[in-house]
Amino acid sequence: MKSKGTLIVISGPSGSGKGTVVKALKEMMPELGLSVSATTRAPREGEIDGVDYFYVTRDDFEEMIEDGDILEYTTYCGNYYGTPRKEAERITGEGRDLILEIEVDGAGQVKKKFADAVTVMLIPPSLSALEARLRGRGTESEEVIQKRLARAVEEIKLASTYDYVVVNEDGGVEDCARQIRRIIRSECNRSFRMSDVIENFTNN
Amino acid sequence: MKSKGTLIVISGPSGSGKGTVVKALKEMMPELGLSVSATTRAPREGEIDGVDYFYVTRDDFEEMIEDGDILEYTTYCGNYYGTPRKEAERITGEGRDLILEIEVDGAGQVKKKFADAVTVMLIPPSLSALEARLRGRGTESEEVIQKRLARAVEEIKLASTYDYVVVNEDGGVEDCARQIRRIIRSECNRSFRMSDVIENFTNN
Repeated sequence: MKSKGTLIVISGPSGSGKGTVVKALKEMMPELGLSVSATTRAPREGEIDGVDYFYVTRDDFEEMIEDGDILEYTTYCGNYYGTPRKEAERITGEGRDLILEIEVDGAGQVKKKFADAVTVMLIPPSLSALEARLRGRGTESEEVIQKRLARAVEEIKLASTYDYVVVNEDGGVEDCARQIRRIIRSECNRSFRMSDVIENFTNN
Repeated sequence: MKSKGTLIVISGPSGSGKGTVVKALKEMMPELGLSVSATTRAPREGEIDGVDYFYVTRDDFEEMIEDGDILEYTTYCGNYYGTPRKEAERITGEGRDLILEIEVDGAGQVKKKFADAVTVMLIPPSLSALEARLRGRGTESEEVIQKRLARAVEEIKLASTYDYVVVNEDGGVEDCARQIRRIIRSECNRSFRMSDVIENFTNN
């Protein structure tokens, strides 16, 4: 077993299908570590602190953000949700890999706080395929669709700042998950992740 | 098909088994491009210029080295053998990947001339395993074995300057070849190799 796991950041614009792909990937790789998120939301009936979430106050959460102790976060219904850096360190420290599915603009921030992280952007096969997917939902107005398309294009421009890009072809969820699994596995062979093995030779 | 192939440099100290692994890899990936080497040796009966080798004069070869037109080279029986940079560019330009099996100290040079090259160092599982392999040949004196061991350790110290490190366990040739195949395939997803795909979105 390798000594340190890898933090894998998976992102992509609306319509890239990242949620579905990450779900397929987690089923394909049950050995992946799961991180417990921190939240400012109150615990619900039956939820356990440190198992379902780490329940913290708004002040604590904002202090964690300031101190760089939150790898990435989002707000929903007025509450913060985020991944504590310590959680990522705990899991990768156990030699397990950890997947974080985050918004496109957050990947750069994670990389700053977690230099060894591997960032993957999922993109649709083409602009027309993306448009078809957004229209396919059939619920949004033309204006909303045009806005989402424009935003997706802006986000895809950031693809070159990611380590890897994976194209999610129509019906290609399993194939995407396999490509990402291959990336995760081959990242284990990166020389800087193999320093323990190399040192076995050079410390003699 | 991707628009540009990747140059894969595979190296490793004596006893790492790189020759056997590269042979297994080539059988596993018949789609890999084959480069024609340049040599100063005279053509033998039936050999064809541009097929078996590019036959060049010593002056030409040395000029190519000076001009950076030889990616890596070695001498054998007083003749030069090397990979012309143009050959590597031709093959990768056709979208095919190319494997170069070279000596450990040459990988850095290749990377300088071919920035997109992927370098892989193959190492034995341990110093004692390496020693057993070198002794197993049963043909060398104790002095030669000690020299080779010391040299191998010096070479393994360069592993951190490679992109990837693959451990060749005893009897693990096929497994190593599969790991390298996985590296080659996942390198196709590196964002800088996906610029054509990304530009399809951003040029609109």
